[in-house]
Amino acid sequence: MSNVAASQLSNSLSPIATLTDLLSADMAAVNDCIRAKMQSKVPLIPKLADYLISSGGKRIRPLMTLACTAIYGGDMTRAHRLAAAVEFIHSATLLHDDVVDESAERRGKATANLVFGNQSSVLVGDFLFARAFELMTEDDSMRILRILSQASAIIAEGEVLQLSHMGDMSTGMDDYIKIIQAKTAALFAAACEVSPVIAGADDAAIQAMHNYGLYLGIAFQIADDALDYNADREKLGKVVGDDFREGKLTAPVLLALGDASDEEKAFWQRTLSMHEQKDGDLETAQEIINRHDALKRSLDLARTYGEKAKAAMRAAPSHAPELQQAMIDLVDYSIERDT
Amino acid sequence: MSNVAASQLSNSLSPIATLTDLLSADMAAVNDCIRAKMQSKVPLIPKLADYLISSGGKRIRPLMTLACTAIYGGDMTRAHRLAAAVEFIHSATLLHDDVVDESAERRGKATANLVFGNQSSVLVGDFLFARAFELMTEDDSMRILRILSQASAIIAEGEVLQLSHMGDMSTGMDDYIKIIQAKTAALFAAACEVSPVIAGADDAAIQAMHNYGLYLGIAFQIADDALDYNADREKLGKVVGDDFREGKLTAPVLLALGDASDEEKAFWQRTLSMHEQKDGDLETAQEIINRHDALKRSLDLARTYGEKAKAAMRAAPSHAPELQQAMIDLVDYSIERDT
Repeated sequence: MSNVAASQLSNSLSPIATLTDLLSADMAAVNDCIRAKMQSKVPLIPKLADYLISSGGKRIRPLMTLACTAIYGGDMTRAHRLAAAVEFIHSATLLHDDVVDESAERRGKATANLVFGNQSSVLVGDFLFARAFELMTEDDSMRILRILSQASAIIAEGEVLQLSHMGDMSTGMDDYIKIIQAKTAALFAAACEVSPVIAGADDAAIQAMHNYGLYLGIAFQIADDALDYNADREKLGKVVGDDFREGKLTAPVLLALGDASDEEKAFWQRTLSMHEQKDGDLETAQEIINRHDALKRSLDLARTYGEKAKAAMRAAPSHAPELQQAMIDLVDYSIERDT
Repeated sequence: MSNVAASQLSNSLSPIATLTDLLSADMAAVNDCIRAKMQSKVPLIPKLADYLISSGGKRIRPLMTLACTAIYGGDMTRAHRLAAAVEFIHSATLLHDDVVDESAERRGKATANLVFGNQSSVLVGDFLFARAFELMTEDDSMRILRILSQASAIIAEGEVLQLSHMGDMSTGMDDYIKIIQAKTAALFAAACEVSPVIAGADDAAIQAMHNYGLYLGIAFQIADDALDYNADREKLGKVVGDDFREGKLTAPVLLALGDASDEEKAFWQRTLSMHEQKDGDLETAQEIINRHDALKRSLDLARTYGEKAKAAMRAAPSHAPELQQAMIDLVDYSIERDT
């Protein structure tokens, strides 16, 4: 994409705001469904689920299911329920991720595991996951259940794969793409893929929406991983360096490692593989990454996936041209965003 | 049930051995299905899943699905896949339970969380859970998916409820029954309930098998909780006192609390609620429980549920009378067992 297009984008309403605005009545129905389904006679469950779900996420995945269903002219009532199911799967994985990563903060707020304990986070995650499947059985489409159960297995595989590669200096770019495709992009793909199924569209349409979500998800995660080393973002008061502290080998590090000096290699070895970190190491990591222009190169890589996502969305029918344009704009926005 | 029947039972082949013997070809098919579905390109997943699944469990849940399907004359090929799905759900909850309970040992073997770490246990549990749903979509019955997704949500609710009541001295017998009904009996019920659905039996049959599993599950768990304070079992080299150490208020404690002296109340308060335990406390707990005859009274309570389970099974049709008798015998065995 051109930088002109990117700067035009940043001057207008964000595509997420546009989607949220155009789909506000539908999102209200999704929220009603979410609230109804997280009820339980066990008070801790709605309490913890509400803490998580109301913690200021952008709700990007349910928006995708809603927008794609409208674009294909599908039944929006079915989309509400399935968008809620997708958000439940996402919330369950967030709860479990925060336990696995021992995270203390998400979007500037203490994580549920810190407030309610790891035990509750594990169990309420299981509850949300089971509720997602209950919601799907209410929708009554075996094909959609298959799409979302397969995506759920792939997400878990991706998380285990990421754990296996933690601090592993032999991790290659192909390993990294495999990890983010599974842990992030698989649910984006499923969230979009269910829509043409709802609309009764053909296999080519289902594949196209799968591809849109998959490539957008990969681009989104690469951009996210670049943001985690972005010093400008730090100036905005955002937390950076989570991946560094956890020893994850993400795109910026892998690109900086490609033509690293022996000294730089020793630095990454010590900090990520041997996990010996001291004050100032994150700043050194950022310097090395900048020296290799690895943030810009990460975003270039994200753009190659982004272009594929846009092509897939352009090929869709135009039952809702404004939403379709917003979904195309969402791709560049996901890559150029600063938060 | 009479004690004569119980002693006759203990002199013959256990009903689990009978079921395993009569269903050996079917169990081999279930095992093939389990092995196939726990494969993954991520090596840690089959490694951990295999460690768990081959760790010597009795496979009581898949045996129940197989036996009930045979009793109702249903398609055994479908039963193989669904029995595997039930075992996957059970294995996923075991992995997460051991993380939540910080258990170090299960059936005399180090738990997966101890060997592979909590992180892997959480994530591989999620994987097994997702795979269970994939298996169910292959079976293609929305009703069965509904039964098992609802059971999964109930299990998670039961675990959270148990966590909420940990060390809570105001826990009543009705709270306890609610907890074990959700955390244990719901999956027993679902494992049996799917069978008449496979066989295309009527709603009364589905309800009867649900009741069999539910009441057997409650009886089974009460007996399990009594065994955890059984000094005779300790002499056999088994670990006892897990529930005591975790602060769980189970049937023997609740029955001993019913007419406890002030001194005894103070003891339970200190050990379970304030969680201040010292050497010799487990022995004191066992003494108090024996003083109130609370192990025997726990088993009496288990028997009241067991009788309901037997009545439900006796009402089933007799496509497989030997299996039906073994399932009836399984009730007393679950209560009288010493392991």
